[in-house]
Amino acid sequence: MSQATATSGILADENRDKREQIIELLKKAYWMEIETVMSYLANSVNPDGVRAQEIIESLKKDIQEELGHAQQFGERIKELYGVVPGSLDFAAEQDYLQPPEHQTDIVHVIRGVIAAETGAIEHYTRIIEETDDVDPVTQDMVIAILHDEQGHKRLFEGFLREYEAEGLA
Amino acid sequence: MSQATATSGILADENRDKREQIIELLKKAYWMEIETVMSYLANSVNPDGVRAQEIIESLKKDIQEELGHAQQFGERIKELYGVVPGSLDFAAEQDYLQPPEHQTDIVHVIRGVIAAETGAIEHYTRIIEETDDVDPVTQDMVIAILHDEQGHKRLFEGFLREYEAEGLA
Amino acid sequence: MSQATATSGILADENRDKREQIIELLKKAYWMEIETVMSYLANSVNPDGVRAQEIIESLKKDIQEELGHAQQFGERIKELYGVVPGSLDFAAEQDYLQPPEHQTDIVHVIRGVIAAETGAIEHYTRIIEETDDVDPVTQDMVIAILHDEQGHKRLFEGFLREYEAEGLA
Amino acid sequence: MSQATATSGILADENRDKREQIIELLKKAYWMEIETVMSYLANSVNPDGVRAQEIIESLKKDIQEELGHAQQFGERIKELYGVVPGSLDFAAEQDYLQPPEHQTDIVHVIRGVIAAETGAIEHYTRIIEETDDVDPVTQDMVIAILHDEQGHKRLFEGFLREYEAEGLA
Amino acid sequence: MSQATATSGILADENRDKREQIIELLKKAYWMEIETVMSYLANSVNPDGVRAQEIIESLKKDIQEELGHAQQFGERIKELYGVVPGSLDFAAEQDYLQPPEHQTDIVHVIRGVIAAETGAIEHYTRIIEETDDVDPVTQDMVIAILHDEQGHKRLFEGFLREYEAEGLA
Amino acid sequence: MSQATATSGILADENRDKREQIIELLKKAYWMEIETVMSYLANSVNPDGVRAQEIIESLKKDIQEELGHAQQFGERIKELYGVVPGSLDFAAEQDYLQPPEHQTDIVHVIRGVIAAETGAIEHYTRIIEETDDVDPVTQDMVIAILHDEQGHKRLFEGFLREYEAEGLA
Amino acid sequence: MSQATATSGILADENRDKREQIIELLKKAYWMEIETVMSYLANSVNPDGVRAQEIIESLKKDIQEELGHAQQFGERIKELYGVVPGSLDFAAEQDYLQPPEHQTDIVHVIRGVIAAETGAIEHYTRIIEETDDVDPVTQDMVIAILHDEQGHKRLFEGFLREYEAEGLA
Amino acid sequence: MSQATATSGILADENRDKREQIIELLKKAYWMEIETVMSYLANSVNPDGVRAQEIIESLKKDIQEELGHAQQFGERIKELYGVVPGSLDFAAEQDYLQPPEHQTDIVHVIRGVIAAETGAIEHYTRIIEETDDVDPVTQDMVIAILHDEQGHKRLFEGFLREYEAEGLA
Amino acid sequence: MSQATATSGILADENRDKREQIIELLKKAYWMEIETVMSYLANSVNPDGVRAQEIIESLKKDIQEELGHAQQFGERIKELYGVVPGSLDFAAEQDYLQPPEHQTDIVHVIRGVIAAETGAIEHYTRIIEETDDVDPVTQDMVIAILHDEQGHKRLFEGFLREYEAEGLA
Amino acid sequence: MSQATATSGILADENRDKREQIIELLKKAYWMEIETVMSYLANSVNPDGVRAQEIIESLKKDIQEELGHAQQFGERIKELYGVVPGSLDFAAEQDYLQPPEHQTDIVHVIRGVIAAETGAIEHYTRIIEETDDVDPVTQDMVIAILHDEQGHKRLFEGFLREYEAEGLA
Amino acid sequence: MSQATATSGILADENRDKREQIIELLKKAYWMEIETVMSYLANSVNPDGVRAQEIIESLKKDIQEELGHAQQFGERIKELYGVVPGSLDFAAEQDYLQPPEHQTDIVHVIRGVIAAETGAIEHYTRIIEETDDVDPVTQDMVIAILHDEQGHKRLFEGFLREYEAEGLA
Amino acid sequence: MSQATATSGILADENRDKREQIIELLKKAYWMEIETVMSYLANSVNPDGVRAQEIIESLKKDIQEELGHAQQFGERIKELYGVVPGSLDFAAEQDYLQPPEHQTDIVHVIRGVIAAETGAIEHYTRIIEETDDVDPVTQDMVIAILHDEQGHKRLFEGFLREYEAEGLA
Repeated sequence: MSQATATSGILADENRDKREQIIELLKKAYWMEIETVMSYLANSVNPDGVRAQEIIESLKKDIQEELGHAQQFGERIKELYGVVPGSLDFAAEQDYLQPPEHQTDIVHVIRGVIAAETGAIEHYTRIIEETDDVDPVTQDMVIAILHDEQGHKRLFEGFLREYEAEGLA
Repeated sequence: MSQATATSGILADENRDKREQIIELLKKAYWMEIETVMSYLANSVNPDGVRAQEIIESLKKDIQEELGHAQQFGERIKELYGVVPGSLDFAAEQDYLQPPEHQTDIVHVIRGVIAAETGAIEHYTRIIEETDDVDPVTQDMVIAILHDEQGHKRLFEGFLREYEAEGLA
Repeated sequence: MSQATATSGILADENRDKREQIIELLKKAYWMEIETVMSYLANSVNPDGVRAQEIIESLKKDIQEELGHAQQFGERIKELYGVVPGSLDFAAEQDYLQPPEHQTDIVHVIRGVIAAETGAIEHYTRIIEETDDVDPVTQDMVIAILHDEQGHKRLFEGFLREYEAEGLA
Repeated sequence: MSQATATSGILADENRDKREQIIELLKKAYWMEIETVMSYLANSVNPDGVRAQEIIESLKKDIQEELGHAQQFGERIKELYGVVPGSLDFAAEQDYLQPPEHQTDIVHVIRGVIAAETGAIEHYTRIIEETDDVDPVTQDMVIAILHDEQGHKRLFEGFLREYEAEGLA
Repeated sequence: MSQATATSGILADENRDKREQIIELLKKAYWMEIETVMSYLANSVNPDGVRAQEIIESLKKDIQEELGHAQQFGERIKELYGVVPGSLDFAAEQDYLQPPEHQTDIVHVIRGVIAAETGAIEHYTRIIEETDDVDPVTQDMVIAILHDEQGHKRLFEGFLREYEAEGLA
Repeated sequence: MSQATATSGILADENRDKREQIIELLKKAYWMEIETVMSYLANSVNPDGVRAQEIIESLKKDIQEELGHAQQFGERIKELYGVVPGSLDFAAEQDYLQPPEHQTDIVHVIRGVIAAETGAIEHYTRIIEETDDVDPVTQDMVIAILHDEQGHKRLFEGFLREYEAEGLA
Repeated sequence: MSQATATSGILADENRDKREQIIELLKKAYWMEIETVMSYLANSVNPDGVRAQEIIESLKKDIQEELGHAQQFGERIKELYGVVPGSLDFAAEQDYLQPPEHQTDIVHVIRGVIAAETGAIEHYTRIIEETDDVDPVTQDMVIAILHDEQGHKRLFEGFLREYEAEGLA
Repeated sequence: MSQATATSGILADENRDKREQIIELLKKAYWMEIETVMSYLANSVNPDGVRAQEIIESLKKDIQEELGHAQQFGERIKELYGVVPGSLDFAAEQDYLQPPEHQTDIVHVIRGVIAAETGAIEHYTRIIEETDDVDPVTQDMVIAILHDEQGHKRLFEGFLREYEAEGLA
Repeated sequence: MSQATATSGILADENRDKREQIIELLKKAYWMEIETVMSYLANSVNPDGVRAQEIIESLKKDIQEELGHAQQFGERIKELYGVVPGSLDFAAEQDYLQPPEHQTDIVHVIRGVIAAETGAIEHYTRIIEETDDVDPVTQDMVIAILHDEQGHKRLFEGFLREYEAEGLA
Repeated sequence: MSQATATSGILADENRDKREQIIELLKKAYWMEIETVMSYLANSVNPDGVRAQEIIESLKKDIQEELGHAQQFGERIKELYGVVPGSLDFAAEQDYLQPPEHQTDIVHVIRGVIAAETGAIEHYTRIIEETDDVDPVTQDMVIAILHDEQGHKRLFEGFLREYEAEGLA
Repeated sequence: MSQATATSGILADENRDKREQIIELLKKAYWMEIETVMSYLANSVNPDGVRAQEIIESLKKDIQEELGHAQQFGERIKELYGVVPGSLDFAAEQDYLQPPEHQTDIVHVIRGVIAAETGAIEHYTRIIEETDDVDPVTQDMVIAILHDEQGHKRLFEGFLREYEAEGLA
Repeated sequence: MSQATATSGILADENRDKREQIIELLKKAYWMEIETVMSYLANSVNPDGVRAQEIIESLKKDIQEELGHAQQFGERIKELYGVVPGSLDFAAEQDYLQPPEHQTDIVHVIRGVIAAETGAIEHYTRIIEETDDVDPVTQDMVIAILHDEQGHKRLFEGFLREYEAEGLA
């Protein structure tokens, strides 16, 4: 057999079940990031308007960041002896981030981003709990990603507040 | 109305039908590139082996390139007064680029890449024909992208030839 | 005589008339870009307001781009055996891009930019037609510049839409 | 004694009184810049909203610039044989730059920045007068800093005008 | 209400009290870093002597690092729905880092830095304990900052040892 | 009213007349630089010959420098509460810098540059005198620009001397 | 005494025993990394063959990474009041990473790397457990290093699989 | 068979004859560029004199550019299923670019460069015609190269004019 | 006469014969490098296959290196009062580096590179002997180039060994 | 005559006497900087000891700075129609900066640097006075250089203080 | 057999004995450098004190340099058909560079570095003699390394002199 | 005594006389380079004319190169236990490189550079001979510098030839 027998840690044979459970969580996280890349790509091109530029620039920067997250999730799946899934396994879920009817409807985009980030935060919080004590490497990686998502969410909540204060949302 | 009346070129009112036809072709191209990003992402992580490293590095570089193509297609859709579609419109088609049963099966990946590039070349060749004389900007942009895809295809055909020469494909 | 006799292509002696016709078109394009540099320079300094910053940054970046276009037009004039004209030949035409009465009147600036880009698009579309088959080098260069101008126009149309949606334009 | 006797210029023994007068002015300038760093730090994090992003980015860049000013003032104090004061000497004065009640209240921030810059301009104008003919090095340094502050003030006055034009300030 | 309801993690409504407790700890940390910036700024300019240069360079580099820590604390406060305090809330505490009587008294500076870092280490250790299991993002961020401070402290303890060995401290 | 009342310096209300006088001088300087950009652009493309390359490279570098001067003048106009003029206000004056009859006539270009720089030096010297004691910021900025122009003039005078020494000018 | 009395955390006096226990673990880790540097150095020069190049490049990059790990371990030892050991304390253990008889025997190298990484993973997993709750800084640092080693191991296991699939290992 | 069947475009089986015709044209272009590299290499070292430096620097920069052209031609040959020829197929043709008798004879070099560029322009113009409609990728690539060569030719024609004007050519 | 009389060293008049002998050796070296550039250019494009990529990348990097060697040889010829020969003097000799019949025949390429490097090593060794004591500058330059060639040869010998070990060469 | 007649400013004919007076002052400044380059070069190599390293690094950085000052003085001499003097005009004056008897005698070097900077400060203060109102460009340039020299002097006075405090100077 | 027969130079078959003798010398040099890496690593972390920082920074930079030397020695061994030895062959010899009893004992470190460099200089001088005339490539490489070591030695001798002058060594 | 006893090589005690002889040669070389810096500085500012620009740029680049040579000579003097001399030891010798009567007299400058380089070549050739076998490090360093000087000389000889060919020299 090609692997030297690891006798401790998440890569040990005895932890195979735990590992597969974590892999399933990571696959879901992987697809969340992939869909976010798609959604942010569309929403960084479609919107019209001066104020939209701030959103567009913010999302453009995030595309690379979220793609980077997807790559980290993919590589961790591999390290845990899993297989990164192919495009046929993809199923869209972010109905709140589809293009709005009018491309000047920025509030629609802002609410969509908040919803997407909220979902990600919930799921990553769960991974952090599940990996506690058994896989500190995955845990540490996900904490760093969670930090990014909390920051994004908070920023877009601020955007929404302004529109609410102006009576536009 | 917010647009100054353009009286010539693809942005002119009288060319609306042609424009929408081109937009449909560009949307298809957009989704082809997006799916390729997904497929190359998975196939740049999954494969095992020394020889696979060459493939992995090649695909990793291509991820950014193909994402860039998608962004170019998206922005051109916008410029032609279209809307970049959301993730719910995505439908996977690259069944030949799903992860193989064994991660050392590199020939499977190589054949998949060739198939994907062949499809892209066919479609982009058609866009070049459709835009001839009516939209030189789109045409010029797609010729450059076509060059990239022809190069990728030729490279992976060379990879395949080696495996055929060794009797492994 | 100092030129080796070229027997084919736009530089051939027999194409002198065509060449001079193209040079006249390029001179007009050259002056359009020069005036745009002036207009964008003033409009990247004068406007007041938070929203204006987005316009200002956009125009500041375009100053270099438009100056670059002017240099390309100038060098192509030279390559076709023409002479780049001096400042005495300049005649201002962009009355729609003069400073507005109030420096917070951003809509005035936006409309001005759209008008300027529309004019450029019309003229460059004509150059592309005139050079078809006889001077592919000029044609290729102008297609790339046309792409830039279409993108600018589309962006500022989006800005205008927002103001229209808010009932401010 | 460790200093070679300088017989001319602001470092000469006979100019000790003038030097100490300038040092006092520089210490006040030093504390103004330090407090501005604090104020801009808070106001580059707290505000909510799309429009706030423009302010936030502007202040974030200014933090480094103002810190640089503080370092220049500190080093000039040292060069004139003074001592840069410690944190116990700090006394806050910018009551107009404290966080507003609602973080979407951007007008509050804008007015605060204008007030801070106005104070700085007054004080630096005085230093320029006091150093005239006696300490050209300090004078030259402060003129350059004054230029920065005039530019900041003018920018935020422009921001305020927009809000006034919209009836929001 | 503008926030999507978070049902788990530190941002959840049910964790409001815990969040406010953490915010108070972060504000204190924020002010510690701000004062350290002030103290290191003065102490990177004032000291005289060859040996002092090593200290000066070390503190100059730390100014940016500590300012960065302050920004991280400020942004985390914001993410947890708190408000970064203004300059009127600042109260100096580092009496051990005020300028010494003679600017060649390096031991005074060294002892001051050790005292400041010791205080920071105590406080950050407490934050790490308080956030355990409830806010892994804050915890992870503070561990990294703690590492920096431990390194600084150890370095200056080494400086002190040399002076002690030479009978100068 | 949106401006905090400045009670000293060039931005004070009582200095409005002086300010407007300076603005007029700066507008003239602005147009001189803009025309120089045009003239140097043409003269960095048109000339033929090996020796001309040295001139061409020198003017190409100066295009960016002179454009930068124009931007500095424009921004200072804005800071003094003026408005940067639009292209309709432009009137060409550099008849000595129009393209010569033969593109190998380098002496024509050199004399033209010297004439342009001489005019700029005269005007900027006047601004420096007019702003003395009342607007040190404008004065300091113009002194730096004057230095550039003196250097250019001296360089081209040297070029001319060589041609004179060879009996060609 | 030169250390300010720390009353909490791993640097506190009362934690001296724990600290020394951790130092011993870190010294072992330090020597493991040092020996890996030696082994990778030799194995990045000796192997012959096209396929070997992939291994060689991989190991060459790892030399710097592993040396960096050694430096991190060394500096942490210092921060915990320990002393980095000298060369006389070194004892070689990686008999599985000595040069093979034939320099084309790549499988020998691959197996050696897997064995080395497996040993490191075991030891670092133990450090993570030992430092839990008592020294989060060391723990966090070692988790990051553990991630690197897991990645290396997984990569070389993939290499081995290919050779096994080809019947060469 | 290793190639996926392409059914449209220049890579399609039915276009084999056209493809081979283009390959022959590209091989000739390849050798023209290779010989130019040789000629420019010699002529960027041999000439003596101040004026020659301008030529030397120009040719030195062109060596890299022409080598890049050769690589582009070579890679396009490969993409069209051709084989880049070996050194035995090389036959020198640029008798006009051999070293002159006296190394101060710059006119000889200038005439040689014009002759070489004229030949290239003729040949590339023909490729552009031959590929029209059938191979837009090759056509687009050659148009860009043609632009470079037209620019070089025009520059050296200008050099020649100066010498003619001085009665030296 | 234009040269100051050198009375010692290789540039002295009395060493003219020795100098010409060295020039002849350098010309041969120059042509060897030029042909190698051609051969490596073709062989960095033609080969097919995954394993070929390693060879291709290696040769691509060497193209620039060998071109640099050619430039060094050319400049040294010039410094010794010789003339770099033109393209008509070129005669191909590397029959072992022509494209193989099948582009997957990598062993053919490897053997060719070894043969080319062996020839270069022999010739450069001779130059080092011939210049000993009489021209240390040329000697020193050639020793450095020799080192490069020995390294290349050794690398490709390693490649060959692998194929021999696999029974493919 | 080759100069366009300047009618105002320092370059005007009527200011020839003043100009020559300034040129003499600039020549003296030029030689002071040149000698300082020599002295700092020797003193950045000769000294022995750990503490000397700080001095050495400081002087090494200053060599480039002082050489830059010399170049500025030289170019200003040229701009004022003077001639930069040749090496025969050099006369050494810095007897206080010759190598000490023992290379560990750092105090000797420190005192020498202070003496050199004091001399420069005196002379530059005089130039600033002489150019007041008549040549603002030279004045502005010298003020900036004076700032550098004041900073250097202050730094080395600090070094000296430490040695005095230790009873070593 | 896989090597083309070399008939001259150190790689020739007839020079096998000489080659093996040189390989043995290079292996010893390789181990000296490796041990120095270890020693400098420990001694760039352990020492305490301000003055120690200069040593620490010097050694930190040397770690990379000495590792580079080791790589050069290793690659030369390979080029001469030798094999770089594995970690089991390492035997520590630098007893003079082990950590001192007190980490403020800098003189111990300085003496150790001088001893190490002296040993290296002796050995490298011998290699230079042994390779004279037979292997100029190795000789040239070792001369460059010898230069580095002489410089290091001289620097640390200077450090020691200071301590001796102060009566501390 | 502070130096470990070196028993072989140029640093050995027994080679003290040889060392001092080399030091004297290096001091002379040091002063030659220093004077060249002065001469090139003046001659890179003084000359007038288009053609002079090529000389000016060439000399400006050489200033840094020659200063670098001086630093190398200085550091080698130090390594051989010598002392770099101070400015009082400087005596100008390059009477042929003083400013000419007319600043358009370029031939004067060219002849001066050739004379200076010829002198340097003679002296460095002697150092190479004197160090043969006894100090390979100095020899190797001087060979590299000699190469630079031969290249400079050859370039300026080429410049002179052009003037001779035109009957101007």
